[in-house]
Amino acid sequence: MQVSELSRRSGVPIPTIKYYLREGLLPPGAATAATRAEYSEPHLRRLRLIRALLEIGELPVTSIKHIVSGLDDAAVGLHDLLGRVQYALGPQVSPPADDPDWQSADAEVTALIDDLGWIITPEAPARALLAGALVALHRLDSAPQGLGLREYAVEVSRVAALEVASVGGVPPEPPPGETASVADRTAVVESAVAGMVLYEQVLIALRRLAQEDASAAWFGGPG
Amino acid sequence: MQVSELSRRSGVPIPTIKYYLREGLLPPGAATAATRAEYSEPHLRRLRLIRALLEIGELPVTSIKHIVSGLDDAAVGLHDLLGRVQYALGPQVSPPADDPDWQSADAEVTALIDDLGWIITPEAPARALLAGALVALHRLDSAPQGLGLREYAVEVSRVAALEVASVGGVPPEPPPGETASVADRTAVVESAVAGMVLYEQVLIALRRLAQEDASAAWFGGPG
Repeated sequence: MQVSELSRRSGVPIPTIKYYLREGLLPPGAATAATRAEYSEPHLRRLRLIRALLEIGELPVTSIKHIVSGLDDAAVGLHDLLGRVQYALGPQVSPPADDPDWQSADAEVTALIDDLGWIITPEAPARALLAGALVALHRLDSAPQGLGLREYAVEVSRVAALEVASVGGVPPEPPPGETASVADRTAVVESAVAGMVLYEQVLIALRRLAQEDASAAWFGGPG
Repeated sequence: MQVSELSRRSGVPIPTIKYYLREGLLPPGAATAATRAEYSEPHLRRLRLIRALLEIGELPVTSIKHIVSGLDDAAVGLHDLLGRVQYALGPQVSPPADDPDWQSADAEVTALIDDLGWIITPEAPARALLAGALVALHRLDSAPQGLGLREYAVEVSRVAALEVASVGGVPPEPPPGETASVADRTAVVESAVAGMVLYEQVLIALRRLAQEDASAAWFGGPG
């Protein structure tokens, strides 16, 4: 398809498509004449992914570029690629230096990860995100006491394992040592991006709706 | 305690405390002389709540003011108060007018809520948050297919029911028609705020950590 049809089918204006091409977010089309290029279904899928990362994930263009360059580079392993996506997601929390509450929360996070036997890099931003929430919870006398951190973690890990296993329809038991094809790899990463960014929104929204319903039942409802 | 001790114990600078007093976020202390006021433990707790809402919840001051004014106004019911908190939380999503994908996603959200029998106001922002994520998911060919929306919702509602029941140590079966005391009510709302804002961060962080671990197991780990 030509760029005009790509624009029409994706809903992305032509100048924006040209910007993505210049920035390397979108791979060039196949040249059919000096000033013409032919685009195909992968371009359409990539455009929709970029829009979702921008509009739903609210990622900056530099982060999207880093993710997309990894997607196009077969030397970057799948686990590292998924890490690029996840580590780009906000909010980014910077621990204050020499704060004993933070050091204590950080130790709590490390102990939880060790206790569960999870494999997590030391630089994972989710460590600081979790520690920051724990610091704030510990400082509030009135934090809810009903659910423990470990119970939450076990509950969440079941969902996460299903999510990772379900991305892109990867077969449940891939042959060990076999290299996934480039197309499979693209599907896995695109699916993982959608899963990480969009299902996080789905979970947040569902939790809020479920809380409103539970509050209505508990505190007597609207009025 | 005097304002200097309030500042020291809360870690909030005195000029910031005075700003909160002027804005009505913090109730005035008891006047002990023309230029002196005495503050107590509730001030300390309120300050910590304000900081958590600002720094972790990232709420604007106007939203915090709306929440705090409801907290101090006994005429505002508990369910409405919890709604004020939740409806102030971002991200706020505005549906585009006349977009058939949005109308379809919105109908899907309404059908899910009806199907589950949840009691949710028509203006709940989480409806649009969920519909926006669904629109983006439907537009991606490669969205993960492993988990259905209803399964997520049922899973999440179990956690939400426990969370609402656990806020502030409310007894599991409060006598019907009985009015909670002002202190209990404050504890419920403060606890709910912490639960909504901070446990959302806890859940997001735990989900990301659990995904990293699941990805290491599935895709062969770091390296």
